[in-house]
Amino acid sequence: MALPPVHATRIKIYYYDTDAGGVVHNVAYLRLIEAARTDFAEVLGWTVKEMGDTGLVPVVSRTEIDYLKPARLGDTVRIESRLTKLEKVRFHLAFDVLRDADGVTLAQCRQVMVSVNLANGRPQAVPSAWTAAYPELIGERE
Amino acid sequence: MALPPVHATRIKIYYYDTDAGGVVHNVAYLRLIEAARTDFAEVLGWTVKEMGDTGLVPVVSRTEIDYLKPARLGDTVRIESRLTKLEKVRFHLAFDVLRDADGVTLAQCRQVMVSVNLANGRPQAVPSAWTAAYPELIGERE
Amino acid sequence: MALPPVHATRIKIYYYDTDAGGVVHNVAYLRLIEAARTDFAEVLGWTVKEMGDTGLVPVVSRTEIDYLKPARLGDTVRIESRLTKLEKVRFHLAFDVLRDADGVTLAQCRQVMVSVNLANGRPQAVPSAWTAAYPELIGERE
Amino acid sequence: MALPPVHATRIKIYYYDTDAGGVVHNVAYLRLIEAARTDFAEVLGWTVKEMGDTGLVPVVSRTEIDYLKPARLGDTVRIESRLTKLEKVRFHLAFDVLRDADGVTLAQCRQVMVSVNLANGRPQAVPSAWTAAYPELIGERE
Repeated sequence: MALPPVHATRIKIYYYDTDAGGVVHNVAYLRLIEAARTDFAEVLGWTVKEMGDTGLVPVVSRTEIDYLKPARLGDTVRIESRLTKLEKVRFHLAFDVLRDADGVTLAQCRQVMVSVNLANGRPQAVPSAWTAAYPELIGERE
Repeated sequence: MALPPVHATRIKIYYYDTDAGGVVHNVAYLRLIEAARTDFAEVLGWTVKEMGDTGLVPVVSRTEIDYLKPARLGDTVRIESRLTKLEKVRFHLAFDVLRDADGVTLAQCRQVMVSVNLANGRPQAVPSAWTAAYPELIGERE
Repeated sequence: MALPPVHATRIKIYYYDTDAGGVVHNVAYLRLIEAARTDFAEVLGWTVKEMGDTGLVPVVSRTEIDYLKPARLGDTVRIESRLTKLEKVRFHLAFDVLRDADGVTLAQCRQVMVSVNLANGRPQAVPSAWTAAYPELIGERE
Repeated sequence: MALPPVHATRIKIYYYDTDAGGVVHNVAYLRLIEAARTDFAEVLGWTVKEMGDTGLVPVVSRTEIDYLKPARLGDTVRIESRLTKLEKVRFHLAFDVLRDADGVTLAQCRQVMVSVNLANGRPQAVPSAWTAAYPELIGERE
């Protein structure tokens, strides 16, 4: 039986994440989520090293993010990543960004990814290891 | 009669906007859109100077973005911004990111903004000049 | 006679340039300088389009920057770029970052660039048009 | 006896660190170094939490960086930070950015920092715990 397709990443907030409003800048959350997503892909067997070597990369096709409460300097955020659906060439991810100290949810994000072959820019099937491990996540494009 | 609540901003793509995939990085679009949004707010009479001085700032509450085609080094993008709806403390924006050379749509984004008083972190009514100028955009929270 | 190898670029400061200290973040200046440098290279006949097409790119080999006074939200900075020296494969640039409203110097930067062929990663001679136009700038490596 | 004023931080390289040249972007190194510097300050007893709370922050006054070899996607870099000199209100840091896998030096950086009171923007004495712990580093401004 496969591990549940979930993963948690902890990231410290630095000055470069913040803006003059005194809180983490809205764009910075997407960078934090990219780190969490890349770590998560690695846990699922798709390493960034492999992406560089094979030229097969997960490309963001759509992002939705709701900002609920601000993260601040000195916080550590815990990003919980989940694989929520597998289509032929696309897969869906969900992320909860929590303040690690008290578990308060700061932001929620969903992303639709496409497996792309960088050499020709064309979509390619999602890793077969994933469809084998998580058949319950296989679904149709909406 | 008020000007139509639309605005176009042209932005050149630099190396720092791109990633090792050879195209503009997904997070960079949100930075470009922030520049367009800030210029647009200024056109509508809400300058970044004022934001700094008064502490009343538009805060991003939600972002949705669909990536359609990649922008590349050497491109200039044209970002068309529109005010689409006014609620009590929130307003809605839509952005089309186009390749300026041929008008091809590269990305489409929608953002929900909240007017926030930085001093106390509390929402405040959207500028009354906007509700006066664009009564047809006034709507309820969904 | 060639134009003097100098150029000025004006750039508006946005929220994403600032940090929780309330001023422009130290790293952001290097991004602003990259925009100025790219515009300057274009004026000197080396466009970013060409960099993407030919794979011959100016690579930063060394940066020195002194932060004198902070830029702030609402400021427009004027970056004055100068070509100061031409070696065989390297060239030297100097940048003054000024507050456009009053001409106060905010930061001063010097960069050493190397012409690199991206395909093989090897240095290549600086554009011959530059050595022809600016013989007085030709010098030895220190 | 105080611990030697050195620290090592390991950071993974993500897509957002790279550019279309296929390697880590020159500006990104300064962000990585800021993370290393902040972790180092914490080890030396000056936490980012404290910076946020007290408004006493280390501000970058000068940066010098030499780029020797490119870091790439999939690399982990090890940043070795050292406190090299203490003046009245300024302190000097040196950073070596190494490829963690083989210890090759990718970049070398030196920064001059100033202790600044954010409330009034004025320099303040460096932490007395540091001058007590590292008397051999106390020196004059050059």
